[in-house]
Amino acid sequence: MRSVDELRELVEGALAELTPAGPPGLVEAVRYALDGGGKRIRPVLCLAVGEATGADPEEVLPAACAVELVHTFSLVHDDLPALDDDDTRRGRPSTWAQFDESVAVLAGDALLVEAFRLALSYATPAVARELADATLGMIGGQYLDVTASADDLVALNRLKTGRLFEASVAVALEVCGSEPRTWPAFGRELGALFQFVDDLLDGDGHVLVHGEEETRRQADEAAERALAALAELNADTSVLRGIVESLATRTA
Amino acid sequence: MRSVDELRELVEGALAELTPAGPPGLVEAVRYALDGGGKRIRPVLCLAVGEATGADPEEVLPAACAVELVHTFSLVHDDLPALDDDDTRRGRPSTWAQFDESVAVLAGDALLVEAFRLALSYATPAVARELADATLGMIGGQYLDVTASADDLVALNRLKTGRLFEASVAVALEVCGSEPRTWPAFGRELGALFQFVDDLLDGDGHVLVHGEEETRRQADEAAERALAALAELNADTSVLRGIVESLATRTA
Repeated sequence: MRSVDELRELVEGALAELTPAGPPGLVEAVRYALDGGGKRIRPVLCLAVGEATGADPEEVLPAACAVELVHTFSLVHDDLPALDDDDTRRGRPSTWAQFDESVAVLAGDALLVEAFRLALSYATPAVARELADATLGMIGGQYLDVTASADDLVALNRLKTGRLFEASVAVALEVCGSEPRTWPAFGRELGALFQFVDDLLDGDGHVLVHGEEETRRQADEAAERALAALAELNADTSVLRGIVESLATRTA
Repeated sequence: MRSVDELRELVEGALAELTPAGPPGLVEAVRYALDGGGKRIRPVLCLAVGEATGADPEEVLPAACAVELVHTFSLVHDDLPALDDDDTRRGRPSTWAQFDESVAVLAGDALLVEAFRLALSYATPAVARELADATLGMIGGQYLDVTASADDLVALNRLKTGRLFEASVAVALEVCGSEPRTWPAFGRELGALFQFVDDLLDGDGHVLVHGEEETRRQADEAAERALAALAELNADTSVLRGIVESLATRTA
């Protein structure tokens, strides 16, 4: 059983070895976005689910990286002046600020298609189908966010953050051919937990609506439900329990 | 054997019946972009190749529509202020001008993923893989165009226009399980022909570099090579010959 750090190293190694298609300048922008670090939570989660169900991480890696590329695509487009207008990301200029807007639009597009290329490296379309559905959900969430047209924050976050967390779990199960059982509930609660803690750290979203104390309570409840979903699985979920705890207590 | 007009009607019907995923406002923008008309050359070509190889058009339709959605995605993003800055498209406000920039970015993203959902409706990943490779080529061509960094116009157009024409042929063959033979050459020459005539009609691109007479000559040569590729195929290519002729002589 590999530790979270070992799984993260696997992810970083696989991402570093990717050779995106395209002219050098476009590839440079794609690599810039991908090399920006970040916690790699989604692909690590994906690999950890694979390990818990007895799969070889090497087999799950393309799916895990595909999820990370979709996440990276969404950041590149979200940061654009017309959307969130963020000129920094993880302590560096965001992709559009480093290159320009047109290159960032195209680099985001390329990341999204590269994600599908990875998901399509499997013999069946199952992983890519799951990824497509989750990505559409995420784009819908981003639309609700940008246009401030969500009915409620929980529904918005379930799309914008939750769908890709759920997909991180689901694609690993597809690769392993495992039965879903309580895995979907685990993915859903983990996505909710991630967002509650994000809002606590940033002092926005749920914290603005419900206050800090209530948001903390909801985060802890999501963590408990995630652990309960794991407890019902007939699998070695020790690394996944560690992921739940580190997401619940993270400070960055 | 269906005529080009009958094939176009099939395409329009299938596009009209698509139900994109997402919040109503986003779906409205996606539909706006899709409903803008246009010649539907790529999906008609795809269906005509299918018919020539004896396939049921209904079977090829999802792949044909997937190609059209990728084309539509590329127009929505290309029209953005940061790229070509076109505020009209086919006599109507372009998607960003009708909605706004942020919605156009997200609608383009959604169109791209919907294209993959259609391509993934087949039992094998072959159609979606072909589409992913072609789309990356097209994005690379758009990058060369936007950054004015192409070494030569032929190489640029081969990516920006050509790859999707080639894919229109290739995905039909994938659906039918047909051997490639001279089909790839046909797709390639048709893409070149389309672009030469586009430049003649717009008075730009090749016309600016080589003049009108030379561009006309190159268009005619591409048409001849496309017809020669068809002549070597053991298939009823009458509709496809008509498409070559109509592309060579089109005035809009």
